[in-house]
Amino acid sequence: MKSALPKVLHRLANRPMVAHVLANAAALKPSLIVGVTAPGAAEVTKAFAPHPTVVQSKPLGTGHAAKAALGALKGHDGPVLVVFGDAPLVTTASLRKLVAACRKAGAAVGVLGFVARDPTPYGRLIVQDGELMKIVESRDADAAERSVAFSNSGVMCIDGRLIASLLGGLRNDNAKREFYLTDAVRLAREAGHKAIAVAGEEAEFQGINSRAELAAAEQALQQRLRAAAMASGVTMTDPGTVWLSADTKFETDVTLGPSVRFGPGVTVGSDTVINAFCDIEGVRIGRRALVGPFARIRPGSEVADGVHIGNFVELKATRMAKGAKANHLTYLGDSDIGAGSNIGAGTIAVNYDGYGKHRTVIGADVFIGSNSSLVAPLTVGRGANVTAGSVVTEDVPANALAFGRARQVTKKGRAAALRAKLKDRAAALKKAAAERSDKK
Amino acid sequence: MKSALPKVLHRLANRPMVAHVLANAAALKPSLIVGVTAPGAAEVTKAFAPHPTVVQSKPLGTGHAAKAALGALKGHDGPVLVVFGDAPLVTTASLRKLVAACRKAGAAVGVLGFVARDPTPYGRLIVQDGELMKIVESRDADAAERSVAFSNSGVMCIDGRLIASLLGGLRNDNAKREFYLTDAVRLAREAGHKAIAVAGEEAEFQGINSRAELAAAEQALQQRLRAAAMASGVTMTDPGTVWLSADTKFETDVTLGPSVRFGPGVTVGSDTVINAFCDIEGVRIGRRALVGPFARIRPGSEVADGVHIGNFVELKATRMAKGAKANHLTYLGDSDIGAGSNIGAGTIAVNYDGYGKHRTVIGADVFIGSNSSLVAPLTVGRGANVTAGSVVTEDVPANALAFGRARQVTKKGRAAALRAKLKDRAAALKKAAAERSDKK
Amino acid sequence: MKSALPKVLHRLANRPMVAHVLANAAALKPSLIVGVTAPGAAEVTKAFAPHPTVVQSKPLGTGHAAKAALGALKGHDGPVLVVFGDAPLVTTASLRKLVAACRKAGAAVGVLGFVARDPTPYGRLIVQDGELMKIVESRDADAAERSVAFSNSGVMCIDGRLIASLLGGLRNDNAKREFYLTDAVRLAREAGHKAIAVAGEEAEFQGINSRAELAAAEQALQQRLRAAAMASGVTMTDPGTVWLSADTKFETDVTLGPSVRFGPGVTVGSDTVINAFCDIEGVRIGRRALVGPFARIRPGSEVADGVHIGNFVELKATRMAKGAKANHLTYLGDSDIGAGSNIGAGTIAVNYDGYGKHRTVIGADVFIGSNSSLVAPLTVGRGANVTAGSVVTEDVPANALAFGRARQVTKKGRAAALRAKLKDRAAALKKAAAERSDKK
Repeated sequence: MKSALPKVLHRLANRPMVAHVLANAAALKPSLIVGVTAPGAAEVTKAFAPHPTVVQSKPLGTGHAAKAALGALKGHDGPVLVVFGDAPLVTTASLRKLVAACRKAGAAVGVLGFVARDPTPYGRLIVQDGELMKIVESRDADAAERSVAFSNSGVMCIDGRLIASLLGGLRNDNAKREFYLTDAVRLAREAGHKAIAVAGEEAEFQGINSRAELAAAEQALQQRLRAAAMASGVTMTDPGTVWLSADTKFETDVTLGPSVRFGPGVTVGSDTVINAFCDIEGVRIGRRALVGPFARIRPGSEVADGVHIGNFVELKATRMAKGAKANHLTYLGDSDIGAGSNIGAGTIAVNYDGYGKHRTVIGADVFIGSNSSLVAPLTVGRGANVTAGSVVTEDVPANALAFGRARQVTKKGRAAALRAKLKDRAAALKKAAAERSDKK
Repeated sequence: MKSALPKVLHRLANRPMVAHVLANAAALKPSLIVGVTAPGAAEVTKAFAPHPTVVQSKPLGTGHAAKAALGALKGHDGPVLVVFGDAPLVTTASLRKLVAACRKAGAAVGVLGFVARDPTPYGRLIVQDGELMKIVESRDADAAERSVAFSNSGVMCIDGRLIASLLGGLRNDNAKREFYLTDAVRLAREAGHKAIAVAGEEAEFQGINSRAELAAAEQALQQRLRAAAMASGVTMTDPGTVWLSADTKFETDVTLGPSVRFGPGVTVGSDTVINAFCDIEGVRIGRRALVGPFARIRPGSEVADGVHIGNFVELKATRMAKGAKANHLTYLGDSDIGAGSNIGAGTIAVNYDGYGKHRTVIGADVFIGSNSSLVAPLTVGRGANVTAGSVVTEDVPANALAFGRARQVTKKGRAAALRAKLKDRAAALKKAAAERSDKK
Repeated sequence: MKSALPKVLHRLANRPMVAHVLANAAALKPSLIVGVTAPGAAEVTKAFAPHPTVVQSKPLGTGHAAKAALGALKGHDGPVLVVFGDAPLVTTASLRKLVAACRKAGAAVGVLGFVARDPTPYGRLIVQDGELMKIVESRDADAAERSVAFSNSGVMCIDGRLIASLLGGLRNDNAKREFYLTDAVRLAREAGHKAIAVAGEEAEFQGINSRAELAAAEQALQQRLRAAAMASGVTMTDPGTVWLSADTKFETDVTLGPSVRFGPGVTVGSDTVINAFCDIEGVRIGRRALVGPFARIRPGSEVADGVHIGNFVELKATRMAKGAKANHLTYLGDSDIGAGSNIGAGTIAVNYDGYGKHRTVIGADVFIGSNSSLVAPLTVGRGANVTAGSVVTEDVPANALAFGRARQVTKKGRAAALRAKLKDRAAALKKAAAERSDKK
């Protein structure tokens, strides 16, 4: 990955790769999930929480990694699924299918396989009469085995009552001096147990070993998320430019323009339209709302029914009550905007003084004139009116009218003199610059 | 579609699906277009206007729907084309080809067909010696017929002199108890008339029954529109992220950056550059103009030759005369900007007072200083100068100089005291917050 | 191309098509590069600089064009590569391979070929026993030759000691009355020399003859640039919406959101995050910086380590020192922002007075209150504080506190009267408009 960040913490759909693996496994409601990490991977351990992790002391192969978890599995005699932190596209449905097939067949070991377009790099699953005979590594395969396209995904289901003895039997008498989990198939059969293989789609089993593969996995996940959203009644002008998070939620008849990014924690109510070029994160958006184009909503926000958020508007930790509007070039940070209030173009909620963040609380039916500065902490009462261009530093009572701007002074015919002066200044600066560059 | 909106009103290239069907049919200049709608579909009827519609009382099949239109077709003895509101990709060229082929062959019935990659879901067109023998529904086809990939698009051309008798002969003695329009082929042949099939491309005949299919149709339409624009001399850095409307028009040597959306009603003059991330609708843009990145132009605008509209600038119902410039973070709504005038960064045209919208009229060669608020209704005369940061509430005569800002007051060495005060406030607030959370 | 601009000057990855050809050729470190242009192509000649060009007086074929360069090649006896200005995807690696193969084989002429999916439009390379026997134009090919898919790219390597005599032997006794460079193969063989063909990938040899092909070439180039960036340790959420320039440079662990455009002249330091919807050009960005979403950086800028540039912020010729922040709706033009300084939301650097551009110089640890206007030329000293909403026209000394805003006046209960007045005005305007439209 050429990265200082552990591979499984690279993000897909706005959560770490390994969190997808955990979520897909957790959907099976297992009694226990145990992570196996390399030594000193505190960040990875944290990403596993609340699930426990064990440390594989040395990188001695997949079988060795699985053995590291044996202690944590003590007393567990149900099926044990082995999944990989860098293969986040394996679906819950495939895992469920594997477990169900093992149960039905009474298999000690089950393996998810796939028919590979190019099986060259993969171990092959040799199946006979419905049973998995063995897994042959690519380099060890004979000509007949090499012609088999049914390939090993690595995902395995092992009978919890047998796992300790199977893993105990693994040997590292091979070229790489590693313990291969795949040997469990042979060991199980030698002990008179059954092994099976269950076929899935190749697309699910792509591992991630480079940024390009990370981007490809992101693309695959996005396509799943987009398809699900459209199936539930979301219109997208161009699904290929809608970027969703794993937890984005929509009601029906939501319309999304092209180029919309959803960070984590967004829900969108029905009949809401989100126009092109929006970046939205951490907000519950109500129904019949109108957002964008060019809107940016940051976490901690709430946008009620019928709210309008227009172009070049930023909301941060801001609540907009029913029908409130902020349509143009506005920053609302740490603010509460009352129902039906209108925030004029160019308004800035001055929430930061260099040391602390302060709230701006605006009542219902307030009219904030354009280009105003609302210096927080500030309260503007219901029905109040702030005139355009005002700097508001003191609370405004309900129904009051607040001015905070200078009176206009117009000097007739004086623009020409100013123009002449500015022109002269520009010429003088140009001349000075030329002289400076001559000297060099 | 999981939608409260009738399917044919879902939008493609910014107009309802059915409007594409109407436009493509209307391009043939037929003497009459009649829509057939379900009962209570007032919105659909409206979308058909000015074309009349008739109501199909019950959903009893395609033949039944066609019969509903018979009254409206009385006296018409030319060819009658039957097209579908949810198949908007069928081109005028294909319709024309079908009508011409029917005319040439003297056929009573003609059908548009296509060679399907997967014909399973389609009725098959059984052609022999250049004549269409019958259309066999997939479930009724025998093995030989099922092996035919030539499939029924549904689009038909029926001789206007025969349509009443052909439709009159349809029966609903089938599993679904529906009247199938496809039976007209058999009926025509039984009456001694000729039927033919004309082949088109499968891509044209995709019907739309889900949001995913809607998105795919949008993509197909966009590719047609983009290809046409490029062929006419438009450069696109990334055509896949240029979203056009069906009516977008370009002169030659227009350059479009990536991620540009065109709403309805846009024309762009030659040598104009539209940079990345623009959202443009309802505007005639002149030649050699420079727009974006991050520009948003809303309907009712006019942008003359040589105008510059820069980043984070919104125009709404605004006319910019030749060579005028608004380059940074500006909102111009309901405004007229004179030739050669310069609107400084951060300018806001205050066009809305909470009740009415008012115009800002700025003459030629005006200089509006940055961060000004222009409170409409307002007139600024030719050659006037508004100083930066002004709130302008009264008209400014030509060549006048207008100030509307406070004089600066500088208090030496006082920043430290302020910083200390703000720091103390932040600390006190933090402490209070901690105490509140302790109590919980 | 339907364009007033010469074809080879159309841009790819933000530089003229021909510049790619020149860069790829120059990477071989040839002793000389000579361009051949049509008459009157001053712009093209300029694009070739500092390489000399010669003029092909009339368009009499590729051989004629090559002959035009003979004078400039006098005295050069190394290999001469012939490449085409409208085929910018040919890589340096392919050129190097061709030269090396010619050298190794002692060939007088070498040709780059490719196995075409559809060879119909191409001349075919007839190879026998490892030697190129001849190049047959498609229309002159017999059935056996037409079945050959190995096609001529046009790119040739000719022995510098033989080029004059080979080109001198070209004849135009053909249908088009043109001198074909491809005849050099036959002539070389007739003179007892060897000719060879070297195979490359078809994708490299796409010529550009329309805007659609230009867009396809852009796409191909972008994919190369994106793959290289990812391989070097850049994470891209959606590589398909990252648009790079040929010279964009990244350190490792840079993260790019979707929809980011890089103009020329950008370098990005490690651990920097550039969020969605950014347009960035001509800037060196440091490490651990945070940019966007919706940021626009223009040429002449420098963004140091740890700087934050937020949404709807434009930088132009502006230097932000270490840890400085400008997070919201701000325009900084011709500015220097000191280390650790915070520029409040809505700040405008008023750098233009209608005639000249002036600098704003802000020291370290300055706090600029929101919605301020900084009227340049202006200096704000270290540790100073400008209060929100100020218009600053005079220098602010270090540690001073500057105000430039009116004091707030609040009129209790007066909003109702204002609302009534505005409502009446809106009603009156509406009535007047109705009356005007009645009169029409």
